[in-house]
Amino acid sequence: MSSGANLLQVDGGRLWETLMRSGEIGPGRAGGLCRLPLTDADKEMRDQFISWCEDAGCRVTIDRLGNIFARRDGRDESLAPVLIGSHLDTQVAGGKYDGILGVLAGLEVVRTLNDSSLETRRPIEVVCWTNEEGARFQPPMMCSGAFAGVHDVDWILDCRDDDDFVFGEELARIGYDGDTPVGGREVDAYFELHIEQGPELEAKEIPLGIVSGGYFTRGMVIEVEGENAHSGPTPMDKRRNALVGAAMMIVAANDIGWKQHPPGKSTSSRIKVWPNKPGILPDYAQVTVDFRHPNKATTLAMEADMTAAIDDCCERANVAAEIVQTWEFGNEVFDDECTALVKNAADELQVPYQEMLSQAGHDAYHMTRITPTALLFSPCKEGITHNENEHIELEYTVPAVNVLLHSVLGRANR
Amino acid sequence: MSSGANLLQVDGGRLWETLMRSGEIGPGRAGGLCRLPLTDADKEMRDQFISWCEDAGCRVTIDRLGNIFARRDGRDESLAPVLIGSHLDTQVAGGKYDGILGVLAGLEVVRTLNDSSLETRRPIEVVCWTNEEGARFQPPMMCSGAFAGVHDVDWILDCRDDDDFVFGEELARIGYDGDTPVGGREVDAYFELHIEQGPELEAKEIPLGIVSGGYFTRGMVIEVEGENAHSGPTPMDKRRNALVGAAMMIVAANDIGWKQHPPGKSTSSRIKVWPNKPGILPDYAQVTVDFRHPNKATTLAMEADMTAAIDDCCERANVAAEIVQTWEFGNEVFDDECTALVKNAADELQVPYQEMLSQAGHDAYHMTRITPTALLFSPCKEGITHNENEHIELEYTVPAVNVLLHSVLGRANR
Repeated sequence: MSSGANLLQVDGGRLWETLMRSGEIGPGRAGGLCRLPLTDADKEMRDQFISWCEDAGCRVTIDRLGNIFARRDGRDESLAPVLIGSHLDTQVAGGKYDGILGVLAGLEVVRTLNDSSLETRRPIEVVCWTNEEGARFQPPMMCSGAFAGVHDVDWILDCRDDDDFVFGEELARIGYDGDTPVGGREVDAYFELHIEQGPELEAKEIPLGIVSGGYFTRGMVIEVEGENAHSGPTPMDKRRNALVGAAMMIVAANDIGWKQHPPGKSTSSRIKVWPNKPGILPDYAQVTVDFRHPNKATTLAMEADMTAAIDDCCERANVAAEIVQTWEFGNEVFDDECTALVKNAADELQVPYQEMLSQAGHDAYHMTRITPTALLFSPCKEGITHNENEHIELEYTVPAVNVLLHSVLGRANR
Repeated sequence: MSSGANLLQVDGGRLWETLMRSGEIGPGRAGGLCRLPLTDADKEMRDQFISWCEDAGCRVTIDRLGNIFARRDGRDESLAPVLIGSHLDTQVAGGKYDGILGVLAGLEVVRTLNDSSLETRRPIEVVCWTNEEGARFQPPMMCSGAFAGVHDVDWILDCRDDDDFVFGEELARIGYDGDTPVGGREVDAYFELHIEQGPELEAKEIPLGIVSGGYFTRGMVIEVEGENAHSGPTPMDKRRNALVGAAMMIVAANDIGWKQHPPGKSTSSRIKVWPNKPGILPDYAQVTVDFRHPNKATTLAMEADMTAAIDDCCERANVAAEIVQTWEFGNEVFDDECTALVKNAADELQVPYQEMLSQAGHDAYHMTRITPTALLFSPCKEGITHNENEHIELEYTVPAVNVLLHSVLGRANR
């Protein structure tokens, strides 16, 4: 086995410069990013990314959902490509690395291969998936989901954001309504590098996490039905205040998370209320909650606790409720062969790693359904993410990018 | 004493027809009205009202806040006028009578006087106050408040709605940015007829309530500060979810209302959350709550309970909170002489009545500060209000309108 120092390495400085340029596009309020999908900022970032990819000699195609594929030809163009990707969109108050690192690390892999004029047997494609965050259009991981056949393309094109803007119209507005079909083609393998979004790797000073599975996650949207009435004279026992019912459910969901802490957790981060005015009791509320635990049975028990709590809240608040949507993720299976390639590359490069579970959803989750997939984590400061203070250090990031390079190289020459 | 039947009476059919025409302007979703202030529907109603007033021979003036005054001259124009009024705006899901009855009953008083060519010593003005409901711009009872010197005119003109539309710009847009000053002139007395917005009068089959005071009301806006974080990996004990803190406060406020039920009550009908997205814990929430009880000391105790509960919720949800705004109403004093006039008119007309407290705020509350004021209630079906199913019957409404007519007549001839 050759020593890591003699192996091909990415250019960390160039990667960092690229990340910093991305970090200027779509500034947030507090030093991070607010780069919601299909906004002008998203367009500017996409234009920049494509310009970099074309400078690196890639052929760029865009599918009907705006997913971008930058292809570096292989020696045998009849073979299915190896994909490296993630997303360039962010939360409303997001960081500069979540998703972005995965796409720009893919670009750095291509640039590094170019520097050494290294051909690969299979083509390599760097992918930017549209709307991973779900910050503007729900659900998250939207367009990798469509690529994997989980969501219908036309259904996505008709989705609306909170201000009633239509996905398809916004996509056309920024000029990213491409003409290639979404998915439906053979992919040899998919590799995604993502920041951990947890504190573990940094605390242990381990620069690489190899994801073996996910926290099992169940989510639901609950609609609460009350009745409009005057906030003044209506006696307490005649009130059917949808907001009060919704608040009770949020508190109940929070209690359920605490009951399974650690490692279980529950979240309510979104509420809609109508009319949501002073003076009038709202007749409608909508709450989104989810439950996560490494053990599937425990997550299902948390969900069952919530279902019971909803009934209890309805009785106490004199409202009705219905679970109108549910979803789950985190039971995806990553590919043994791809994962072995990653471990092998880490060993060769002498990069310490640990296997771990992912607690968040990623585009890689959907890709497991249609192609052998590996998901790599690199550390982020104190696990802070979905926060403008999200931070990484180049020195503890480059090792994982080098592992990505060699994993992809191995697969693309297979 | 003459029998009621021989006294001057309003034309109930004409009043009803006028109410029904108003009920067509700004339809809601379920048979009621959605006539928010300074919208196109508000303009259409104002235009219709002014056209009716001019047909009735009134001179119409509009002040800088769009308050409309339709004046029927008195014999002695040097004397201060008697005002009759209420509001023509509604809640988002409002009824056809709340406020509207009071304005159109004023118009019916003028029409009835015209029918009999009855002059009065003092002028009479029918008033439509801008934005009583507070459904679009807060606070409620906004422009009667400015007339009474409680709010600053320029401050109101700069107020913004939830979509950031500016009050003054919207007022100009609908052409109701009048040129007369707001208030600052002598008013002899103010009479307001309003639906009860409670079930008592209808249940007891009493057609008239004479308001002797209000439920003492304390309200507050609470801002909750948390921290953005990923809804997945962030452990429960690191979360600072502003929505969870706000939900706990809503539940606490509700409990405090129940502790004083009856007759005490508490309300949270409005919440704002940022970013309010799936996937990211919100760092900001804002909750509006109020407490009402006939006994001032009890209301203050409810408020003190809430202040303590806020601290407790902050600790449990690991958030910070601040009460950024407070208000109170319901300790207004109605005028003995005006009230005696009302009672006297009711006796003469043989209209049964009862004295009662108001549980809701009304424009009359502000007017008590600057002029002798009386507030009259007529029944509404089952007390349902701020609801599109709000309903009144002509037969149990006309008696109160006749009492209004004779009260105003008595005062205007004083």
